[in-house]
Amino acid sequence: MDVMAFEDVSLPDVTGLSVGILGGTGAQGKGLGYRLARAGHPVVIGSRDAARARDTARTLAAMPRVEDGLVSGADNVGACAADVVIVAVPWAGHADLLAELAEPLSGRIVVDCVNPLGFDKQGAFPLSVPEGSAAQQTARLLPESRVTAAFHHVSAVLLSDPTIDLLATDILVLGDDRKAAATVQALATRIEGMRGVFAGRLRNAHQVEAMTANLIAINRRYKAHVGIRVTDI
Amino acid sequence: MDVMAFEDVSLPDVTGLSVGILGGTGAQGKGLGYRLARAGHPVVIGSRDAARARDTARTLAAMPRVEDGLVSGADNVGACAADVVIVAVPWAGHADLLAELAEPLSGRIVVDCVNPLGFDKQGAFPLSVPEGSAAQQTARLLPESRVTAAFHHVSAVLLSDPTIDLLATDILVLGDDRKAAATVQALATRIEGMRGVFAGRLRNAHQVEAMTANLIAINRRYKAHVGIRVTDI
Repeated sequence: MDVMAFEDVSLPDVTGLSVGILGGTGAQGKGLGYRLARAGHPVVIGSRDAARARDTARTLAAMPRVEDGLVSGADNVGACAADVVIVAVPWAGHADLLAELAEPLSGRIVVDCVNPLGFDKQGAFPLSVPEGSAAQQTARLLPESRVTAAFHHVSAVLLSDPTIDLLATDILVLGDDRKAAATVQALATRIEGMRGVFAGRLRNAHQVEAMTANLIAINRRYKAHVGIRVTDI
Repeated sequence: MDVMAFEDVSLPDVTGLSVGILGGTGAQGKGLGYRLARAGHPVVIGSRDAARARDTARTLAAMPRVEDGLVSGADNVGACAADVVIVAVPWAGHADLLAELAEPLSGRIVVDCVNPLGFDKQGAFPLSVPEGSAAQQTARLLPESRVTAAFHHVSAVLLSDPTIDLLATDILVLGDDRKAAATVQALATRIEGMRGVFAGRLRNAHQVEAMTANLIAINRRYKAHVGIRVTDI
């Protein structure tokens, strides 16, 4: 793809694209599900426990500015039937879950938003991942999927707060499949205030995931829910 | 230090603080030297070759809005006499240079802004550093210095462009010595448009350095000189 100014980037029309969320009952998954449903996308909350997923779906469906019938719940395999599938599971269960879902995720656009972090009394720090990053682990486990990484830095607290209309933050989108990345950029850009910015190949995903440790340090210091904006585009 | 909103952070008064720049004849060093001199700080451009450093100093001194007598050139040891010393050397010579300068840098606030990156036909990627990051390597080599890391993401092109008055970007400042970090935050904040934001301990420096590979990918895609803003503070 050619070099271009941000406002000139022609992203695909993703109106009506359905989104499944693995780990959709967690804070990040719920928050992303809420915002994407608010943007008019059918959202399938996935969980190991389908009943729990349906509970979360009911909660999200009842939130402000979500149209009737947009949010549903299913087991994780059910959530894999969506056009785009976001991986928002805890790092601890990441590899095992994805290994199980390689077949239902075959051909799908997969968006990994998992940050492999450890915590001790000095705060957060990145964990070492044999593949280099959570996103690269996903790419290894899902060779037939179109793997991207995005949504690492956006605060679950802000995502889930219905009184906040505008999330003035950028979403760094990584991927080796440029068309898949462009779809995820477009999806991020559907959320009010957000821009999906292409930020490189999966081999550069580690530092994007790990940067979340720095944002947590900033949050602690300044009592905030920070995100990132890319300047000059 | 307590949690606080950004506008409440009381940073030290750094008016008149002198700044030495190791590798001050390179693009990043020159750009930082220009902006800090413009902000009223005495700047000593350092280089292995003192004559070259003096050449660069003369160039910077002649640039718009730099007061007479603020910029000088010296060999690297000479630049170590400043209050704060910025390390802006190429990664290839990083360890060797710092090992030589451990004594003159003893007790100084040292600011590492080096990004260990490799380049191939797919673009930039982070190099593996035995210590974890350039900043941690500096801390190992300079046990008697107050090591911080900052200024990784700011574009040398924008820094050096005298027609740009405002650099609307944030500088992530890392360090285990909170007072040294606060001094560097204050120094960054002296540059018009910039804020120095405390972003964690040195163990979290790797991803900040490596993120430069992503910013390079963004620059290529959008034909820009991007930086980062931290939102919500």
